[in-house]
Amino acid sequence: MNSLAEDVRETAVRARDAAAVLAPLSRADKDRALHAMADALLAGAGPILAANGADVAAARAAGTGEAMIDRLTLTPDRLAAIADGLRQVALLEDPVGTVVRGRVLPNGIELRQVRVPLGVVGIIYEARPNVTVDAAGLCLKSGNAVLLRGSASALRTNAALVAALREAAAGAGLPADAIALVPGADHESVKQLMRLRGLVDVLIPRGGAGLIRTVVEESTVPVIETGVGNCHVYVDVDADLDQALAIVLNAKTQRVSVCNTAETLLVHAGVADVFLPRVLAALRQAGVTIHGDDAVRSQDPSALSATEEDWAAEYLSLDLAVRVVDSLDDAVAHIRRWGSGHTEAIVTRSLAASRRFIATCDSAAVMVNASTRFTDGERFGFGAEIGISTQKLHARGPMGLTELTSTTWVGVGDGHLVV
Amino acid sequence: MNSLAEDVRETAVRARDAAAVLAPLSRADKDRALHAMADALLAGAGPILAANGADVAAARAAGTGEAMIDRLTLTPDRLAAIADGLRQVALLEDPVGTVVRGRVLPNGIELRQVRVPLGVVGIIYEARPNVTVDAAGLCLKSGNAVLLRGSASALRTNAALVAALREAAAGAGLPADAIALVPGADHESVKQLMRLRGLVDVLIPRGGAGLIRTVVEESTVPVIETGVGNCHVYVDVDADLDQALAIVLNAKTQRVSVCNTAETLLVHAGVADVFLPRVLAALRQAGVTIHGDDAVRSQDPSALSATEEDWAAEYLSLDLAVRVVDSLDDAVAHIRRWGSGHTEAIVTRSLAASRRFIATCDSAAVMVNASTRFTDGERFGFGAEIGISTQKLHARGPMGLTELTSTTWVGVGDGHLVV
Repeated sequence: MNSLAEDVRETAVRARDAAAVLAPLSRADKDRALHAMADALLAGAGPILAANGADVAAARAAGTGEAMIDRLTLTPDRLAAIADGLRQVALLEDPVGTVVRGRVLPNGIELRQVRVPLGVVGIIYEARPNVTVDAAGLCLKSGNAVLLRGSASALRTNAALVAALREAAAGAGLPADAIALVPGADHESVKQLMRLRGLVDVLIPRGGAGLIRTVVEESTVPVIETGVGNCHVYVDVDADLDQALAIVLNAKTQRVSVCNTAETLLVHAGVADVFLPRVLAALRQAGVTIHGDDAVRSQDPSALSATEEDWAAEYLSLDLAVRVVDSLDDAVAHIRRWGSGHTEAIVTRSLAASRRFIATCDSAAVMVNASTRFTDGERFGFGAEIGISTQKLHARGPMGLTELTSTTWVGVGDGHLVV
Repeated sequence: MNSLAEDVRETAVRARDAAAVLAPLSRADKDRALHAMADALLAGAGPILAANGADVAAARAAGTGEAMIDRLTLTPDRLAAIADGLRQVALLEDPVGTVVRGRVLPNGIELRQVRVPLGVVGIIYEARPNVTVDAAGLCLKSGNAVLLRGSASALRTNAALVAALREAAAGAGLPADAIALVPGADHESVKQLMRLRGLVDVLIPRGGAGLIRTVVEESTVPVIETGVGNCHVYVDVDADLDQALAIVLNAKTQRVSVCNTAETLLVHAGVADVFLPRVLAALRQAGVTIHGDDAVRSQDPSALSATEEDWAAEYLSLDLAVRVVDSLDDAVAHIRRWGSGHTEAIVTRSLAASRRFIATCDSAAVMVNASTRFTDGERFGFGAEIGISTQKLHARGPMGLTELTSTTWVGVGDGHLVV
């Protein structure tokens, strides 16, 4: 019997071999497989929902909270929506083969840079079974084999989903090993996966800050860091204050549990006296707890006193840190010091202020007179996203199919020699 | 007195702060600094050459080989050429601010993806003082601060070069800390640098396979792997054999010590009887030692017997591994198994064969009827290169100024809210 390390490696070797088969496939071949996979999820709904029922029952027995149970639970409707997601991916352009740049060199060589699949993509994620299918669909469409490492609590569900997807892929003439669950359910299996540099081309951790930190620290496989969002809204001295009020409320309260929600509000001192009373009242009305600096608390003594922990916090709750700043540059300095580089918004009517904010913020996305909540692959028109990168290498911001590719340089000559 | 760890961190913090100043600078500001830096190298030639003389004397006293001494040595002519390199970089387009993609979303938000500097770039390299200046110039032009960690044997030279560059940058109104030597000369200082995730945005190791492996294994800062080149030439059954002969000789012998030189020749069995005698004779004539499989040795009994080590070797010498393969797919399978993903060349008159080779090779560059030696930033028209990436993430192949940038998404609205 193999050790877990050998099992994980063997799975990755098979994925690498499958990736070699996927790379030259046409879009038509891949789209056919995606539709077959969607069909298979519907046809296999019985065993998939039964497996999910067992996972949910086990989670309940273990005392898991209701929010987590909800994320884990599949229903016939949810499964149908997940299957439909695969058909949506089939509708998207195939990035593979796109020519990024090209020219004829002075010596006559025709040179072009062409998009190619990354190869083997590893996804490490928590208890959302939809990620299993979404990631498999996006990776397949972009010509990549995928290694899926979900959480132990969703193991039965993921196994049933992946079995259906593999069988459908094979039925459509693709290698089943293009989609695989990583063996093992404890940390040891993630650890093995993280050591497979050369076999696995990239790891994308999706989940809490702790998971992401572990992968970043321990992996020798290149990692794309996703998702931690300590997003800011800065209300400039030249802001339209009605617009500012609406944007702050939208960015904070429209959906609190997501990474593009605002966690800190920065208000220019020149408008603080007018704007703070309005915005604080509206936020309180919406059930938001304010963590303010001294200037804020002088307006609203009921606000909690903000500490450095508040400036750093990704609350993901109805909490907001609020600070008064003396200038746009001070706002940017605060953001650079405390932000996670996800999304920052400025509200201003000044073109010069918007230019300076954009040029100096250093985040994956900057919104001018728009809610931070717009940073999202679907809203950006990518059709789907595999995560939001907060690092600067390879991909920054929402990652769609294009971000799941690399490039190759192709040079075509006629006996050209270097002299 | 600070510990080394504190010194390295302090240098990185200053570089990060300098990077914030560099990011919004115009091309004109950066070009002025590049010319000032070139002037400073010429004006400071006295102390720079004296420092280099001391490094060279110490290296000689330590019994360093002549090839290494030659790489370490600066002369007035070499220094002038290095200074001229900075002026060449000033002539290149500034990638910062380039709009990669952009559109108006259905809701009216104007969305664009814009190139921005990476931030702080760390370069870890061996005893070539020209890298110190080249890297500083390319990083500055692309708006990045650079942390330079050269080898201990070039420490005096690098210190003199960097002192001149920093003073010139400051004189041109830029922060001197945009260009810094990493304190310390032993492995501990590299180790500290590799732990500065969050302060340093990317590490680029340039040097031997051992250095690169160490950085890849130990760094939590994202790494771009460069340079190891086990490049192949495949002579197809449909090759023009005169062209094939010339390309093999050029790829192997034009310059043996570089990463884009060919290390393995694969010959289709259908032309082996005709081609092998010609190419083996010509290679022997050029002083090349052949490491062949049985089919090769049956043609040329004087060839050494190739082992798996030969298939894996980056010789960087007048050695060549030679193998007969039964098909193009077998050639590609050999390349995928043993190659380093740098550059592969096919010689063929068949369009179908060239298409299949390009689609299945999975290397940073594929040359059709051209020498592997063409994979190079200058030859590709980048003007300069900071290395050749053999990884798939972020940059693949020669890296010029564009590859030293990341992107930011900018969305401009008019009070847009997510509904």
